[in-house]
Amino acid sequence: MKVAKFGGSSLADGPQLKRVFEIVSADPQRQIIVVSAPGKRQEDDTKVTDLLIEYARAVITDRDYRDIVQQIKNRYHEIGKYFELTEIDLTDIDQQIDHLAQKHYRSFDYLFAAFCAHGEYLNAQLIAKAFTHQGLPARFVDPKTLGFLVDDHPRNATLLEDSYQTMAEFELAVGERLIVPGFFGYTTNGDMATFSRGGSDITGAIMARAFQADLYENFTDVSAIYAANPKLVDHPQAIAQMTYDEMRELSYAGFAVFHDEAIIPAIQGQIPINIKNTNRPDDPGTMILPRQAIQNTRPVTGIANSNRFAAIYLHRYLLNKDFTRQILEILSQYGLSYEHMPSGIDDLTIILDKSLTNQEQIDHVLAAIQEQIQPDELKWIPNYGIIMIVGEGMRNRVGAMTDIVTPLKEAGISLQMVNQGASEISIMLGIQPELAAEAVQAIYHNLFQ
Amino acid sequence: MKVAKFGGSSLADGPQLKRVFEIVSADPQRQIIVVSAPGKRQEDDTKVTDLLIEYARAVITDRDYRDIVQQIKNRYHEIGKYFELTEIDLTDIDQQIDHLAQKHYRSFDYLFAAFCAHGEYLNAQLIAKAFTHQGLPARFVDPKTLGFLVDDHPRNATLLEDSYQTMAEFELAVGERLIVPGFFGYTTNGDMATFSRGGSDITGAIMARAFQADLYENFTDVSAIYAANPKLVDHPQAIAQMTYDEMRELSYAGFAVFHDEAIIPAIQGQIPINIKNTNRPDDPGTMILPRQAIQNTRPVTGIANSNRFAAIYLHRYLLNKDFTRQILEILSQYGLSYEHMPSGIDDLTIILDKSLTNQEQIDHVLAAIQEQIQPDELKWIPNYGIIMIVGEGMRNRVGAMTDIVTPLKEAGISLQMVNQGASEISIMLGIQPELAAEAVQAIYHNLFQ
Repeated sequence: MKVAKFGGSSLADGPQLKRVFEIVSADPQRQIIVVSAPGKRQEDDTKVTDLLIEYARAVITDRDYRDIVQQIKNRYHEIGKYFELTEIDLTDIDQQIDHLAQKHYRSFDYLFAAFCAHGEYLNAQLIAKAFTHQGLPARFVDPKTLGFLVDDHPRNATLLEDSYQTMAEFELAVGERLIVPGFFGYTTNGDMATFSRGGSDITGAIMARAFQADLYENFTDVSAIYAANPKLVDHPQAIAQMTYDEMRELSYAGFAVFHDEAIIPAIQGQIPINIKNTNRPDDPGTMILPRQAIQNTRPVTGIANSNRFAAIYLHRYLLNKDFTRQILEILSQYGLSYEHMPSGIDDLTIILDKSLTNQEQIDHVLAAIQEQIQPDELKWIPNYGIIMIVGEGMRNRVGAMTDIVTPLKEAGISLQMVNQGASEISIMLGIQPELAAEAVQAIYHNLFQ
Repeated sequence: MKVAKFGGSSLADGPQLKRVFEIVSADPQRQIIVVSAPGKRQEDDTKVTDLLIEYARAVITDRDYRDIVQQIKNRYHEIGKYFELTEIDLTDIDQQIDHLAQKHYRSFDYLFAAFCAHGEYLNAQLIAKAFTHQGLPARFVDPKTLGFLVDDHPRNATLLEDSYQTMAEFELAVGERLIVPGFFGYTTNGDMATFSRGGSDITGAIMARAFQADLYENFTDVSAIYAANPKLVDHPQAIAQMTYDEMRELSYAGFAVFHDEAIIPAIQGQIPINIKNTNRPDDPGTMILPRQAIQNTRPVTGIANSNRFAAIYLHRYLLNKDFTRQILEILSQYGLSYEHMPSGIDDLTIILDKSLTNQEQIDHVLAAIQEQIQPDELKWIPNYGIIMIVGEGMRNRVGAMTDIVTPLKEAGISLQMVNQGASEISIMLGIQPELAAEAVQAIYHNLFQ
């Protein structure tokens, strides 16, 4: 049995969904189909999830939302009509969209979570109807029915571990196709709560683990994961195989094709992952496997870079004496989670994910650090460029660092930060963001050409 | 006015103290003389401080301590006699040594602190008598008289900041010589409490700041600080000048000639430090200065290495989500302070100073981490070799890392950890301890030859 997950661009309109239909039909083993919300049909289009956010904002600010509701309905109708569903078939979806504005929510965060989750929720219902109508019987399954329970973080939820046991009891008939909406689960109170954005990958991985799938196919719009960002490097090599840990490090540092948290359930269930292209389903794609299943080892598998990081730098003499713990308490107090914290004897850099912070938190944290720690220097670095070089082949390899830093020296690029050794399979570099593209190119050309 | 501090080897016996006498006599500006306890007279000798620790242990375990007391007295008598002091002159010192065993102490830690502190305390009294007897009027000053107050950590004390104000009010007559014992101060309860070992350097720096000295001369048994450990590298270059921050990083990572915490008061008071050789007082030594006072900049000033570190390594998926703070709370709970904490996305290495830990603490901490964090992997690394390459010239310099890691690649040495960037003037490497000497040699030869 296989779990197949399809991303938003694979479900953006009727013709795209037709390709998905053909992929699912072609292999009776594809029994659990996890779907995202409809994505962009072209470059300047708006994703349904973003329309739903706009809808939610209009509701809470008491603005007229008729136009935006109509846009959302149109997206589902357009797909439905392509599959020859009738207006009556779609009434139920229209009603649920209207009903969103009437319901009571525990908090604004739960309101936003429910609105966003409906992108997937309604799409899964629609797809089950469309596939069935096309002669491929498919059953929509609400995560609630599966017992897919999450904790009480409405917009950054984590699966409750017990859910695996509940889901394992769900009976899947031979040949049956289930259409499961990705991205969200239910709290024990019965509220919808979503994973972080892009979280349908996580749902797919959870399904694959829960049902002990033989393979988790993750359909996207690229034919493979490449060794470097194709926007920065001309025709980078495709990665045929990599390990779970390699994928996780690369996702974390900017390879957006697969959500970094989605690796964990796959590791726990030892489920192989295949990243494939909906538009070229015969391409082999990239296999993500346990370490022992990988044959050849290159020194480096991929080079990721990300501009989603910011940093707080501080200098204080005798910083070691308990100050770091105090600083982490300040961060925790203001709900700010940090990514890394390289330290010198009197210096500390706290690297943050910009998408998980807001300016108010930062202001509070800086003020509290200033007051409690009284550093000699305290600096906010709004953009902190990070490059991550990842490869199982770097474990205890002599000279890995030399091969990475030498091309940077030749390109005249100075390093702001180097962090190697906590992870045995990656080296993290801090680079001025405006030099990151050039740095990736220099490193790629030295290692891969 | 100058503060001159003399270490234990400069005060080990009469002939050595005679050299100190000549150095002090030669310059009327040397008004505040900070002294250590008598050190080793030859390789297999025992320092007076170690004899005092043995004495303390005998007292608390109720063993016969008459022999050890005699050995301690003999050390002071030997020096006293060389300066032609009489038995009567030394009676007072003998009585204080005897009296140590009779006094009441707040705790075992305070008992050890008081015994240890007497090495310096008695030596300062003896030296004041000896110098005066030789015709150089010198006054012993108890830190208590100065208002030299420290916090309540009996064996790892920190000066109370208010002490500077009190000490500044102490009047120093023109031409007067004060002999001040290093290494300890008094708590507000009146108990003796010591700095960490080697802490006489700290007393000297505090005196220099409190009395706004023009220079802090630190007399040792080497003619300069060298760019690498002379035991590892043949005739390494002497460092003529370096900045406070360079010295601090080098001391921290193994340059034992000057205590790393002693830099702070010098920085705060902007007091130049001169490391000099008691046996070759005309050699210029090494000057430690504010950054703006340094003329030439090399890329690298020194390469230190240390085997005083150990580490805890742990691997856990999704480590970021608040676990690090929990781990630091566990460390804090068991009184374990850590040095650095390089992290990968799922990995954390906690680097510890072995001299500040004991096996029981480690066992407790490991057990608590296992229970609370449930890592996928938890490893204790009893020896974690660290090499620190330090130089103000590395600030934003392109290629610094390449020049360091290339010779290691050529020598076939793999890196366990690299930490650059928190401090702009140093790069920290983790190396298998048995390869550290070879690594220092390789880096030194690439950078200095």
